[in-house]
Amino acid sequence: MEHGTAVSVVTAGGEKFAVRKARREDVPALVALLADDPLGSGRETAPPEAYLSAFEAVDASDEQLLVCLTTASGEVVGTLQLTFIRGLSRGGALRGQIEAVRVHREYRSNGLGRLFVGWAVEECRRRGCVLVQLTSDRSRGDAHRFYERLGFVDSHGGFKLPLDP
Amino acid sequence: MEHGTAVSVVTAGGEKFAVRKARREDVPALVALLADDPLGSGRETAPPEAYLSAFEAVDASDEQLLVCLTTASGEVVGTLQLTFIRGLSRGGALRGQIEAVRVHREYRSNGLGRLFVGWAVEECRRRGCVLVQLTSDRSRGDAHRFYERLGFVDSHGGFKLPLDP
Repeated sequence: MEHGTAVSVVTAGGEKFAVRKARREDVPALVALLADDPLGSGRETAPPEAYLSAFEAVDASDEQLLVCLTTASGEVVGTLQLTFIRGLSRGGALRGQIEAVRVHREYRSNGLGRLFVGWAVEECRRRGCVLVQLTSDRSRGDAHRFYERLGFVDSHGGFKLPLDP
Repeated sequence: MEHGTAVSVVTAGGEKFAVRKARREDVPALVALLADDPLGSGRETAPPEAYLSAFEAVDASDEQLLVCLTTASGEVVGTLQLTFIRGLSRGGALRGQIEAVRVHREYRSNGLGRLFVGWAVEECRRRGCVLVQLTSDRSRGDAHRFYERLGFVDSHGGFKLPLDP
């Protein structure tokens, strides 16, 4: 995945899907997925250049991996971002963090989300992470059950402090 | 702070403390702080080289900032790590993440921790973050009240999945 060429394949509901590194031309589809969400709909109103500029920064970083989930015909139907965080704690461990998970509403409830996040966990393991972490808004009860079924433990409070622009 | 030269000063209980980027020679003191903790004590048993190697990776990254809190005489009495995460969501926003906060037990309860985390929030603001986030183990009730007094909202579940080595 580091070079943007490798593709992983997951099969859900008899259909094949690919997971690959996001490309610049995917950005509009990715933003549409982020916006098609009860919490995201009100906050994805920035001009296209803001998203392209953010994409360039993420794409250039060795510590970030933004991926697309696509159908066999290449339609982007999911996304998530991994951040690999080295720290001193836990013996100088690497941890993987999952952010901004979205699966298109027409592709939910057939196990695809589970396979997609499972792919992300395996990618973290492959890179040597000792832990995978994420936070999920408490208003997303379904998401919480989803992560618990994947083996995640809701052991921490997830604290956020918005900063005024 | 980017070049490891700038120092911020905070005053607590009539005493002056400095916040500066961590240096390689600080690593043993930082690991001692991480280990002097109910949750950290059992998990900081790696050989010194593991911590030095992790320090080099953190120090080399533009997306990481590991800092020391020191007394006027230079003793290291606190640490935290900031990670700056660019993403597509929220208009291509940058978010700041705080991890591995520790203040030496003899220096707690005089407002120093509050000033130290307040410094971290201001550093995130200075770099253009729209949000600061952290997770805190639910067993740390005092820490939760501490972050809430600083304005953080415990709005998310913090999910963790340990990976087998």
